[in-house]
Amino acid sequence: MWIATLIGLRLGTALILISILVKSPLGAFIDVASVLVVIGGMVAATLICFPLRQMLNTLLVLKKVVFNKQQSIPKLIELIVSLAETARRDGLLALENRLEEISNPFVVLGIQMAVDGTRPEVIEDILRTEMQAVAARHKNGKGVIDQMGRFAPAFGMVGTLMGLIIMLGDMSPDTIGSGMAVALLTTLYGAIVSNLFLLPFAEKLGFLSKHELLTMEIVVRGIMGIQSGDNPRVIEQKLSTFVPPKQRPNTEKAA
Amino acid sequence: MWIATLIGLRLGTALILISILVKSPLGAFIDVASVLVVIGGMVAATLICFPLRQMLNTLLVLKKVVFNKQQSIPKLIELIVSLAETARRDGLLALENRLEEISNPFVVLGIQMAVDGTRPEVIEDILRTEMQAVAARHKNGKGVIDQMGRFAPAFGMVGTLMGLIIMLGDMSPDTIGSGMAVALLTTLYGAIVSNLFLLPFAEKLGFLSKHELLTMEIVVRGIMGIQSGDNPRVIEQKLSTFVPPKQRPNTEKAA
Amino acid sequence: MWIATLIGLRLGTALILISILVKSPLGAFIDVASVLVVIGGMVAATLICFPLRQMLNTLLVLKKVVFNKQQSIPKLIELIVSLAETARRDGLLALENRLEEISNPFVVLGIQMAVDGTRPEVIEDILRTEMQAVAARHKNGKGVIDQMGRFAPAFGMVGTLMGLIIMLGDMSPDTIGSGMAVALLTTLYGAIVSNLFLLPFAEKLGFLSKHELLTMEIVVRGIMGIQSGDNPRVIEQKLSTFVPPKQRPNTEKAA
Amino acid sequence: MWIATLIGLRLGTALILISILVKSPLGAFIDVASVLVVIGGMVAATLICFPLRQMLNTLLVLKKVVFNKQQSIPKLIELIVSLAETARRDGLLALENRLEEISNPFVVLGIQMAVDGTRPEVIEDILRTEMQAVAARHKNGKGVIDQMGRFAPAFGMVGTLMGLIIMLGDMSPDTIGSGMAVALLTTLYGAIVSNLFLLPFAEKLGFLSKHELLTMEIVVRGIMGIQSGDNPRVIEQKLSTFVPPKQRPNTEKAA
Amino acid sequence: MWIATLIGLRLGTALILISILVKSPLGAFIDVASVLVVIGGMVAATLICFPLRQMLNTLLVLKKVVFNKQQSIPKLIELIVSLAETARRDGLLALENRLEEISNPFVVLGIQMAVDGTRPEVIEDILRTEMQAVAARHKNGKGVIDQMGRFAPAFGMVGTLMGLIIMLGDMSPDTIGSGMAVALLTTLYGAIVSNLFLLPFAEKLGFLSKHELLTMEIVVRGIMGIQSGDNPRVIEQKLSTFVPPKQRPNTEKAA
Repeated sequence: MWIATLIGLRLGTALILISILVKSPLGAFIDVASVLVVIGGMVAATLICFPLRQMLNTLLVLKKVVFNKQQSIPKLIELIVSLAETARRDGLLALENRLEEISNPFVVLGIQMAVDGTRPEVIEDILRTEMQAVAARHKNGKGVIDQMGRFAPAFGMVGTLMGLIIMLGDMSPDTIGSGMAVALLTTLYGAIVSNLFLLPFAEKLGFLSKHELLTMEIVVRGIMGIQSGDNPRVIEQKLSTFVPPKQRPNTEKAA
Repeated sequence: MWIATLIGLRLGTALILISILVKSPLGAFIDVASVLVVIGGMVAATLICFPLRQMLNTLLVLKKVVFNKQQSIPKLIELIVSLAETARRDGLLALENRLEEISNPFVVLGIQMAVDGTRPEVIEDILRTEMQAVAARHKNGKGVIDQMGRFAPAFGMVGTLMGLIIMLGDMSPDTIGSGMAVALLTTLYGAIVSNLFLLPFAEKLGFLSKHELLTMEIVVRGIMGIQSGDNPRVIEQKLSTFVPPKQRPNTEKAA
Repeated sequence: MWIATLIGLRLGTALILISILVKSPLGAFIDVASVLVVIGGMVAATLICFPLRQMLNTLLVLKKVVFNKQQSIPKLIELIVSLAETARRDGLLALENRLEEISNPFVVLGIQMAVDGTRPEVIEDILRTEMQAVAARHKNGKGVIDQMGRFAPAFGMVGTLMGLIIMLGDMSPDTIGSGMAVALLTTLYGAIVSNLFLLPFAEKLGFLSKHELLTMEIVVRGIMGIQSGDNPRVIEQKLSTFVPPKQRPNTEKAA
Repeated sequence: MWIATLIGLRLGTALILISILVKSPLGAFIDVASVLVVIGGMVAATLICFPLRQMLNTLLVLKKVVFNKQQSIPKLIELIVSLAETARRDGLLALENRLEEISNPFVVLGIQMAVDGTRPEVIEDILRTEMQAVAARHKNGKGVIDQMGRFAPAFGMVGTLMGLIIMLGDMSPDTIGSGMAVALLTTLYGAIVSNLFLLPFAEKLGFLSKHELLTMEIVVRGIMGIQSGDNPRVIEQKLSTFVPPKQRPNTEKAA
Repeated sequence: MWIATLIGLRLGTALILISILVKSPLGAFIDVASVLVVIGGMVAATLICFPLRQMLNTLLVLKKVVFNKQQSIPKLIELIVSLAETARRDGLLALENRLEEISNPFVVLGIQMAVDGTRPEVIEDILRTEMQAVAARHKNGKGVIDQMGRFAPAFGMVGTLMGLIIMLGDMSPDTIGSGMAVALLTTLYGAIVSNLFLLPFAEKLGFLSKHELLTMEIVVRGIMGIQSGDNPRVIEQKLSTFVPPKQRPNTEKAA
């Protein structure tokens, strides 16, 4: 995940730069005022939409797009099945000793409640509420980036309109070309910022969110199975349906 | 929330003004007839869509975008847990004495009904109907602004088409440039009004509405828990899932 | 409601006319062939979509946009509460004598069934089916106007393309300007017809439909409450949640 | 239905032709290569999307748009009520003798199952599955036309871009006008094919589908009522809610 | 399915090529830098959105669009009915001997569980979870192609803007035409790649997915019927509703 995103970012910027430099000096494509209109306008409009804290959170969240460590689903299923085996062999309370080896805090939360003897409905209720809350937070984060991806081309167009109006006010044949070139720069900036950065980032956040929620769904079903003392093999078979056939452990045949 | 929106509004208008003034006198960007077509057309079309009272309400609602005092969710949970403790220690009726210290009218409504001995299903029914009604009112308010945000660029285009037709009727080389510049002004106005003001305002109202409904959801769950005599610790744990992990009180581990 | 729509219609047309007349003779903006392409094309395409009867119905429905008498919700709740009081005091059958004073046919239908001793599930089933049928009819009516609002700019563009092709076939410097001006007229017509009339009308119909369905929802809940002999105060409190707080009778505190 | 669609088709084509012929020879608007790009491209892209059989089915389905005989809902309700009366008077088995007079195969299927003594849940399950399957087939058919309606303008734009690139390669003042006129033809074709034919056809198919599913819904409710021996008057009242008030038989008052 | 897609692909590319070659040398439409911006930009942006493995999977999935062997639904129903007959005649366990003749792995999974005596709720739960997982994987695959289909025209526009800016920087009358022609090439590439390849491929994947899920739905219902010992004729009748009337075996009348 890490790799594709990095490759994509570098490939994209390299392509844009090269296809400019082949035919023109880079300077013709740089205009500070145009950058200000597009980036500044986009940031200003987004600041109006969302509280400051959410904006800052979103910047932190953006790191995920590149540096996120993703939970491996087959390993998660392995862990849950092994917990189920312990619970079946030595009882639910024996799970307490295994809490320390678990790094996923959502699994810890669920197992802890099972060990504490919390009633199954309450466990499922709390875990599902947590899932909904995570989904809502993810959706908010993605929403900020999506919104920025819509504002960038809009302010690109605003900048181009301003440039055209200025150009039309002084139509000497010498400056009309360069005036229009500068006017178009903001639309170009808006299109690149939106299509090469913001929209892909939002899409990636959506993908990561879907993966994390799938992970949580597997944990919930696994914990509920462990709690009700299901056969570890049955738990494994149920959870394996969430994995593409090729990555599944060979249990279906044996089920 | 207050701060980001104000910064955004000022930053946005400043950027637009500066990037104009750097290259052109401001006068070239001001045309009363163009303002009339865009703002007037937008207002007229919106008046056709909605009753007068809703339009006026929406203006009041717009103040919220900047001056809204937001209910802190951790404090709300604290309040509910403390009410649950009182109810557990001294009985539901003891809550009556605490009604005066509560400022949130939705909490007051729920506690009052619990104290009055209203049946739990009726309490939940009334609270949820209230939530739905609040959601519907918010959606209507946001809808007016959204609709204005769609009409502004549409009448910007109408104005530009009218300007172009006028310009094309009299194509003397001297006036063609300024005629086209004026024609483009309405599109520029429409784009700025929509993207720097109306769409961000609508988005912000949506955000505030989501926050208020989340607050109400927490209240409903809290009241139902208090009413059925749940352990205050369990109530706290359940409600805390609505708060991002970092802001939670340290109860999960202890649950 | 009546007033805002009328103001909007007059304000919009006045603005368009004035901003034309200030700069140009009105004649430059009138072209019969262009009107035919936009309006005729829009009507033709819409005729293909819907049966004749629905088209004619929609024209009748459009009168609602301006002349609709809206049911006052507080008065409706008052009526239901007063019926509930009669029913509590004198029995369900006593409602028969009050049927004549009720003008809302949906309330009459519900009360009549309650008086006839129809079983509650059947009453609710019939009333809800009626609601769904009303919602479907409203949606169809709004759908016709929405569709016309999408066809108008499309045929505006068709007309402009035809005008441009004609103009390009005869590019004498004298006629190119006026040819292009005429070509743009259809796009202008399409944009005005759609944004000043059709889209606001569709939006207004949607608003009126939402209001009527809310009214019906209140009636259904009220009738079911009356039928099951609920306390008129409880009915009032439940129904009041559908009204914005300021317009509510002062019963919440007393509940 | 038949009439409006035919009028629409003729009115639309007549308008387009007349508004061309008034100002220009028709030949200026005909270009075989342009037709090939728009229609051919659209057909090719649609062929990639769907299997051959579905494409051919869709052509058959298109006949419905003009020649469809629509089931009259009041007559259908009359039929069901009369079947209910027979069943009440002479028992469910007596319906077998009336099967031959029924033309609607969905009614036949339902009555046949009722006569055979199939259990009500099974009858409803089979009828509803049939409804879902009909809905899915309708949606697929409409989907093909919708998709073609999206591809037509897209290939119109492709053709215009190709024409512009060819024209720009040879910018002699004599040919630039006619070159651009030809280039614009494909966009015009795409817009007309999409807005005057494909989108209205798709909309009409959606309308017919909605009507047929409403008809089936009425049949299902009617059959279930007959099967459970409901009073024919109650059945009539329930089914009448699906008809606009004016077209209803006068039973509500008498219910 | 195979055939229509192949015809579509060849017809589309042939049409584009021919309509170019008739009027212009092919060379005027080929520009390596433009290909790099559109295809490269599209690939880069998509790489940012999705993990590498998913991108590669999607390439494999694309083969399905042309070479997919589709499960015949009537034959599948035949198989299920014949299994139901075996189960009715010789008991559920007798199905074990028939497992080898079944090629559909989803049927094998269901029958195997039925033979093993797994409880019906567990069988349905596992089969439905598998269906949901298949639906999610299909949606992800289609999502990648959809996203590419949105990025292609976006980077086409980016390329055109860059080309225009370069052209405007050097407006000698000799090069302006060819400069603009090259600038438009990227928009043309983006439109063709998106409308002739990516969007139809995504649509086709959606169609195949719908078919496969319908097949799985039939299997689930069939297995549940077999498991609960339903009459094979009833199973046949229920499953036949998923097939268009003309393709159905003649059992309805006989049911």
